[in-house]
Amino acid sequence: MTAPDQVTGADVDGERLLRRLDELAAVGAAPGGGVTRLAYSRQDLEGRDLVAGWLREAGLDVGVDAAGNLLGRLPGSAGDGATLGTGSHLDSVVEAGPLDGAYGVVAAVEVAAVLARRGGLRHDLLVVGFSNEEGARGTPGMAGSLAVVGALTAQHLAAPDDEGVPLARRLRDVGGDPDALDSARWSAGRLAGWIELHVEQGPVLAARDVRIGVVTAITGRVTLDVVVTGVANHAGSTPMPGRRDAAVAAAHVVLAVQELAAPPPAGSPAGVRVATAGVVRVEPGVRNVVAGRAVVGVDIRDESDARVDAAVAALRHRAAQIGAATGTQVRVVPGSQVAAVAMDARLASCVADAADGLGLSRIDLPSGAGHDTQVIAALAPVAMIFVPSIDGVSHAPAERTDPADLVHGARVLLSALRRADVAG
Amino acid sequence: MTAPDQVTGADVDGERLLRRLDELAAVGAAPGGGVTRLAYSRQDLEGRDLVAGWLREAGLDVGVDAAGNLLGRLPGSAGDGATLGTGSHLDSVVEAGPLDGAYGVVAAVEVAAVLARRGGLRHDLLVVGFSNEEGARGTPGMAGSLAVVGALTAQHLAAPDDEGVPLARRLRDVGGDPDALDSARWSAGRLAGWIELHVEQGPVLAARDVRIGVVTAITGRVTLDVVVTGVANHAGSTPMPGRRDAAVAAAHVVLAVQELAAPPPAGSPAGVRVATAGVVRVEPGVRNVVAGRAVVGVDIRDESDARVDAAVAALRHRAAQIGAATGTQVRVVPGSQVAAVAMDARLASCVADAADGLGLSRIDLPSGAGHDTQVIAALAPVAMIFVPSIDGVSHAPAERTDPADLVHGARVLLSALRRADVAG
Repeated sequence: MTAPDQVTGADVDGERLLRRLDELAAVGAAPGGGVTRLAYSRQDLEGRDLVAGWLREAGLDVGVDAAGNLLGRLPGSAGDGATLGTGSHLDSVVEAGPLDGAYGVVAAVEVAAVLARRGGLRHDLLVVGFSNEEGARGTPGMAGSLAVVGALTAQHLAAPDDEGVPLARRLRDVGGDPDALDSARWSAGRLAGWIELHVEQGPVLAARDVRIGVVTAITGRVTLDVVVTGVANHAGSTPMPGRRDAAVAAAHVVLAVQELAAPPPAGSPAGVRVATAGVVRVEPGVRNVVAGRAVVGVDIRDESDARVDAAVAALRHRAAQIGAATGTQVRVVPGSQVAAVAMDARLASCVADAADGLGLSRIDLPSGAGHDTQVIAALAPVAMIFVPSIDGVSHAPAERTDPADLVHGARVLLSALRRADVAG
Repeated sequence: MTAPDQVTGADVDGERLLRRLDELAAVGAAPGGGVTRLAYSRQDLEGRDLVAGWLREAGLDVGVDAAGNLLGRLPGSAGDGATLGTGSHLDSVVEAGPLDGAYGVVAAVEVAAVLARRGGLRHDLLVVGFSNEEGARGTPGMAGSLAVVGALTAQHLAAPDDEGVPLARRLRDVGGDPDALDSARWSAGRLAGWIELHVEQGPVLAARDVRIGVVTAITGRVTLDVVVTGVANHAGSTPMPGRRDAAVAAAHVVLAVQELAAPPPAGSPAGVRVATAGVVRVEPGVRNVVAGRAVVGVDIRDESDARVDAAVAALRHRAAQIGAATGTQVRVVPGSQVAAVAMDARLASCVADAADGLGLSRIDLPSGAGHDTQVIAALAPVAMIFVPSIDGVSHAPAERTDPADLVHGARVLLSALRRADVAG
């Protein structure tokens, strides 16, 4: 073992961590109990200012880059600029919970405070609050992390959001500089590793009563629309034979999507991890008219890109069958495609060893949700730590994690960074 | 045979009929080629004024009742006030075609003109343009016919429409008098029979290349909502087992609705004529969230009320099964219920004999669409005559009937009224 627990998890100040999470949750607190800190909003800025103060209090050099990312740096003993990074994002969706993103940043601040006080790492430690992970108001999600890997494009900057405002102006509103985005790029050679701590946002850890999830991969994701063209007609005077009912075809599509996630031979040859039809729109959408058009919005995820591709191919095949059977035209219109990202095996074992060292139960699992970490993977080895989400709830006011688990996660982060520091 | 063709169909002036239909279609002509004459609108009033002029030109006594119905009366030779009625409605849906309702009124005017000139009936002839058959802007459909049978209630008058305006004010806007609605009622004993001529609004006659439809019944209709309550959750991080996906449950409901119209044993014990899920709404309706709630809006019609009831019972049974299979709660929420109305056998044979006498092919068929005639059935024997709709299209700008068929229909109406006049 090359990774001793010089500083144990006990050094994390659990009370301060939980208190700060509450303080941050009060910024953008919504009347219904949730938290709304949309990226680039007044509440987002206020939350970032609060965290920047804590970073300064811990003794870090604090700044905001041209893409609006909040950065804090703690110099390492080696003095060569080689860096370990940790953090998450501070923005939220509308009426979110208090933990998605915020937890990973506040825990990173806590870990940095311990390291600054009790003896730091050989590496520099970079604490990051990425801007706009969620993609508020139709802006590109993960805008902050995309910028640090040089993947935020002029097209991203110019595209109007749901309110007609281009991203470039949103960045200026929060003190960023769209004309100097290159200055926000991280140089690949300097980042030795990146670890993000996050709530699971799913039910797996809670259901199995396990304290720590060691993330194996962030699943790849394809979105697409299945568009059905039928013939709208009077619901009373159009006999059943000869109808070209887009709602009936759409219903078959929804069930076909679900089957993509069933293991073969019952389902598709793909058997992807999850396949969801979360959008079903039917037109004209009135009771006395046979539907003439329908759209089913689909989301398919798996840690194997090949399985995702096979699922899309299977859905195209089923779409043609459904069209033929219902007398409609069923087209599969591609949306976005994000490749799966495997976690670094060495960093993941630092996480696993940290959990074992702290006596915390753990399992391996993939992340079905997207995270900035999948973007940072282009630059450096990455890993993620999950703690349980009660009932698996996220993106909702009821998003909660047991306070003890929140402290566990911060301890594992600290220990994993220590292990990565000496294992490098 | 007691019904000679004293006046043959040849007396109808086909050219005038078609010209007047064109003139009326120009009132409220929409840019997209359709016709929009919403009840109680300026365009509706203008259309009614045009038709009132034609009625006066034919020599009828013309008036508008307290419910806004346009009425023209041609006294009969018997002089006892016993009346035969015919007509339809002059209002339309948004971007309708030129024929729904309008055809039955313009043809009635043409028939009245022939009778006024060539020798009338023993009965008084009442030509009616009912107001607001379609139910514009959330007002009660068939408001005009409901008023003449005394079924338009104070509740109807007070209820705000989609624009927040109560029906009472709409009636005043067009010269009606909501305080004197009783004056619009017809006395049951005086109406010896009612015949409405209408385009089929379905594909049956056109597909079978038949000229005349003798309507057997207007189907009963039940509307209901199937409301699914599931659990909304992250589409990426929620494993498939344990999901309570409202969209999946809704898809099963849509297919179950379709099966209600399949004949037993494949379908339900009901095997209704038509069953339609024209509304499918899924919430929150975004791609990356498993749907937590869904509503399927259902319309079931059959000429047998018992079969409609059996279909609703079968759907309740299936809803419970679907809920159990998908881990969701599936409730059937009743909407409206309208009983089936059988046509009068004697009047229907007047129609059939008229078609035969004119050498026009005919079949019996039910009407899946609702008509003012089903309301008038509470007062008197009723019948309906259908002519083919090209491709079955209605409630759309492309609604068309072959001009020859439009003339055939008017000739059958004239002959059928003659037959009813002497058969009574």
